[in-house]
Amino acid sequence: MDDAARYRDRAQRKKELVDRRIARATIDRGVLVVNTGNGKGKSSSGFGMLARSLGHGLHCGVVQFIKGSFSTGEEAFFRQFEGDGLDYHVMGEGFTWETQDRERDIAAATAAWAVAERMLGDDAYDYVLLDELNIALVKGYIPLDRVISVLLARPGRQHVAITGRGAPDALVAIADTVTEMRVVKHAFQAGIKAQKGIEL
Amino acid sequence: MDDAARYRDRAQRKKELVDRRIARATIDRGVLVVNTGNGKGKSSSGFGMLARSLGHGLHCGVVQFIKGSFSTGEEAFFRQFEGDGLDYHVMGEGFTWETQDRERDIAAATAAWAVAERMLGDDAYDYVLLDELNIALVKGYIPLDRVISVLLARPGRQHVAITGRGAPDALVAIADTVTEMRVVKHAFQAGIKAQKGIEL
Repeated sequence: MDDAARYRDRAQRKKELVDRRIARATIDRGVLVVNTGNGKGKSSSGFGMLARSLGHGLHCGVVQFIKGSFSTGEEAFFRQFEGDGLDYHVMGEGFTWETQDRERDIAAATAAWAVAERMLGDDAYDYVLLDELNIALVKGYIPLDRVISVLLARPGRQHVAITGRGAPDALVAIADTVTEMRVVKHAFQAGIKAQKGIEL
Repeated sequence: MDDAARYRDRAQRKKELVDRRIARATIDRGVLVVNTGNGKGKSSSGFGMLARSLGHGLHCGVVQFIKGSFSTGEEAFFRQFEGDGLDYHVMGEGFTWETQDRERDIAAATAAWAVAERMLGDDAYDYVLLDELNIALVKGYIPLDRVISVLLARPGRQHVAITGRGAPDALVAIADTVTEMRVVKHAFQAGIKAQKGIEL
């Protein structure tokens, strides 16, 4: 057997394996995606799925639980689709060490969660991104059991993505796809400041 | 000290720590971001950074090294910005086990790399996304040493994001920010098919 034939043969076996796996994945329903860990890519992946969803003409909702100086690029970009398949809310008031006021943090998170809960109860939303919700859960600003029960009761075709460090175990348990973004290295550690388009 | 005061005190110390770290990160230049690992989020994070970059009015280039049945949503979405700050190329011919023809795979990867190399030599591009380039490197379709030297010689303000499983060590070594997307679990493992907006 020559090289080209061996390549074809190996590719053919790989194709059969992949095709069999795809054939076995027959369930078709809304999924809950959780992006957690300390590495880069949790929010940006959520916004990448937002772009994909809009590309398919899906109706989308976004709630950003933490505002701060971050999130400027994606907000400027996606705001132009508001009313055109997208409902975009920035509800947080910055990272908790910026506000230094627990009552205000809880009030902001509670207001953000009210908007999220409305989306999660409405089957007009095909994709809902709850950006940095995990932070609000870890801090105890929003009751975890309420979030879990609302997620479990949502419309069956609705996709939800939740981002942020420290995803609680109970959330991981009910999620379909969970990724830990692990830091191999980060530019910030080498003294490089946050860059527009990359972090901002 | 009451609870509110304790909260403020803790937040204040955290703020000082974060502010000191931010103050130390003074280097301002283009970064090389690599998203690798077996988990979800590598490409979608690259496309999220694309959205951020477009939101800041940056000029962007995208080369997708593998086409296949994936990448339909993001392509449909971002194509509308072509000519308007974005140069979008889908060059691959599907996963290697689909084509089953090594010569054709190499030719497609080589053509894609030629487009990428032109962007990496042009300081008009602020953000360049080389989606699934790692696959072409792992398969040996494109010479790694050439890719490394072109990346090192690129314009100083240009950001580059490279995605795909199995990022080569030499690429990780020259990158600024590297994230390993680690699978905690995946819907596919539970028999759920790939979903529009999420995987497609």
